[in-house]
Amino acid sequence: MKTYDVVGIGNAMVDVLAHCDDAFLARNGVDKGIMQLTDRARGVELYDRIGPAQEISGGSAANTIAGIAHLGGRTAYVGKVKDDQLGAIFAHDLRAQGASYQTALAPADHPDETGRCIVLVTPDGERSMNTYLGVTEHLSPADIDEAQMAQAEWIYLEGYRFDGPESHEAFARAIAAAKGAGGRVALTLSDPFCVERHRDAFRRMIADHVDLLFCNRAEVLSMYRTDDFETALGRAGGDVAMVACTDSENGAHVLFDGGRVHAAAETVRVVDATGAGDLFAGAFLWGLTRGHDPLTCGRMGCVAAAEVIGHLGARAEADLNALFHAKGLMPS
Amino acid sequence: MKTYDVVGIGNAMVDVLAHCDDAFLARNGVDKGIMQLTDRARGVELYDRIGPAQEISGGSAANTIAGIAHLGGRTAYVGKVKDDQLGAIFAHDLRAQGASYQTALAPADHPDETGRCIVLVTPDGERSMNTYLGVTEHLSPADIDEAQMAQAEWIYLEGYRFDGPESHEAFARAIAAAKGAGGRVALTLSDPFCVERHRDAFRRMIADHVDLLFCNRAEVLSMYRTDDFETALGRAGGDVAMVACTDSENGAHVLFDGGRVHAAAETVRVVDATGAGDLFAGAFLWGLTRGHDPLTCGRMGCVAAAEVIGHLGARAEADLNALFHAKGLMPS
Repeated sequence: MKTYDVVGIGNAMVDVLAHCDDAFLARNGVDKGIMQLTDRARGVELYDRIGPAQEISGGSAANTIAGIAHLGGRTAYVGKVKDDQLGAIFAHDLRAQGASYQTALAPADHPDETGRCIVLVTPDGERSMNTYLGVTEHLSPADIDEAQMAQAEWIYLEGYRFDGPESHEAFARAIAAAKGAGGRVALTLSDPFCVERHRDAFRRMIADHVDLLFCNRAEVLSMYRTDDFETALGRAGGDVAMVACTDSENGAHVLFDGGRVHAAAETVRVVDATGAGDLFAGAFLWGLTRGHDPLTCGRMGCVAAAEVIGHLGARAEADLNALFHAKGLMPS
Repeated sequence: MKTYDVVGIGNAMVDVLAHCDDAFLARNGVDKGIMQLTDRARGVELYDRIGPAQEISGGSAANTIAGIAHLGGRTAYVGKVKDDQLGAIFAHDLRAQGASYQTALAPADHPDETGRCIVLVTPDGERSMNTYLGVTEHLSPADIDEAQMAQAEWIYLEGYRFDGPESHEAFARAIAAAKGAGGRVALTLSDPFCVERHRDAFRRMIADHVDLLFCNRAEVLSMYRTDDFETALGRAGGDVAMVACTDSENGAHVLFDGGRVHAAAETVRVVDATGAGDLFAGAFLWGLTRGHDPLTCGRMGCVAAAEVIGHLGARAEADLNALFHAKGLMPS
């Protein structure tokens, strides 16, 4: 048996969560519902304008890995923080959840800081993310431990991590090491504008390496440059062995082996949508590694997503195992 | 009219909030329900052992000042943080709430860091606090701006701030400047063990300077070394012009001008008791500065305390003004 169920690679950061109204977004030029990259100056400017905030560890793939660790999965995470206070918070929260996290810290004299994401939550529960990547942009192939990748049943790659000078090589190294040892590759498209930035690279990776694709409606439409969801889904299903595509309150579609199932979403009051896709992916992958069928994995994903959008922050607070049992998704 | 309704002086820090069970407290030698000071090494040791956490700005008097600012009061805060990431978070959250905060930062090369408090929340909602004071211990008389104190209707002194080498002189300077300009002095006893450490100094300050004393049952019993609550309350009422003493689910007693009123507590599910006393004091003081009678002030304090114990963290999340209106505490 390999050491890890899932090893994730992504942008390591701490979320700075604050409430605001739609007028604040408009006044400050923040595009609603997506992730936008900011430089340091813009991040500082925006921080000065937002109300009181809370800091909770984030990072898309890190949220997924934390979710799998929470469920009892054997996980590791690769992503760069600095030797600073926010870096210590990020590392603590991941390790305290039971994930292995050994990526070398950027040194204290590095000109950038640990990445952070200003997450603005509007009254409708939608989140608009403003990311200063900081040192996490500089994850390099040297940060990829090939022996660790070889010990992963799955590696989970975050689309956001395609931003950054050495990211493609780092991913290539991870994929080669994992696949060379019989591991499988999951990719999340992360965000429609991330797809816009990296469509060709995503397509090449999907065609050559990806065994499981996570996406949502907007992302898969962007990937295949179409307005028709069924067309996009069909093309994704033709390109990848398994596709898990979320569709907000319409639940999730899972395509595999020429078949297709639909998992219904949970009914929930949306407090903060941050992390919904991340926890969906975490629960889905955990279910797969435990031998559950795709529909059950999809339902687990929807239950986990519902938990995380019911409160502020992108890490699970309630006991997901208990929720899965309550929903009849686990053998009794 | 003076510039400030209330200027608070206290220990500036960021709370690190995590859930645990009673067995964890016992296993790690954490005394339940109180504040205990830790050195840096103990703080690090404890942090390594706790689960995933959330960071929310705290500091007792800072929570009080943030509450008054939230209500629309004119406030300033004095307390020391460092020029580091946690210091920036603390300063942001206070200013974003509308409080003035101008205390000089401890420089980046200071050997200590911004203070933090590991707040362990048990399933009963009780919080057990483990405080690394860091640079906030070094607030000195030079940090007290006498002109600012002279512009305060009230200064609000945090009992916890009696810990630290130059704290007594700093308080003396603040009191002299405020009283010399006709201002009044409020003191909170903070914690029964804080009273134990500083009983004589508290008594001297109360006898000589304090116009309004905030305390809870355990603190006032400790102050007057008695097991009898009525005896302790009576003595406090004899020593200070006004006493506001909280008593958990029994609400609050307010003694003034030889009279006494009782404000009933709100019924609330306790999620996290952190900040209940701080927000009680903030709402009470705000009510006084707006000319409300002591019973109304006490009720406002109870409503604000109920808001803050209904969620994680010691800063108000709901609109306190709206809650006061809904409870019939504000002129319509």
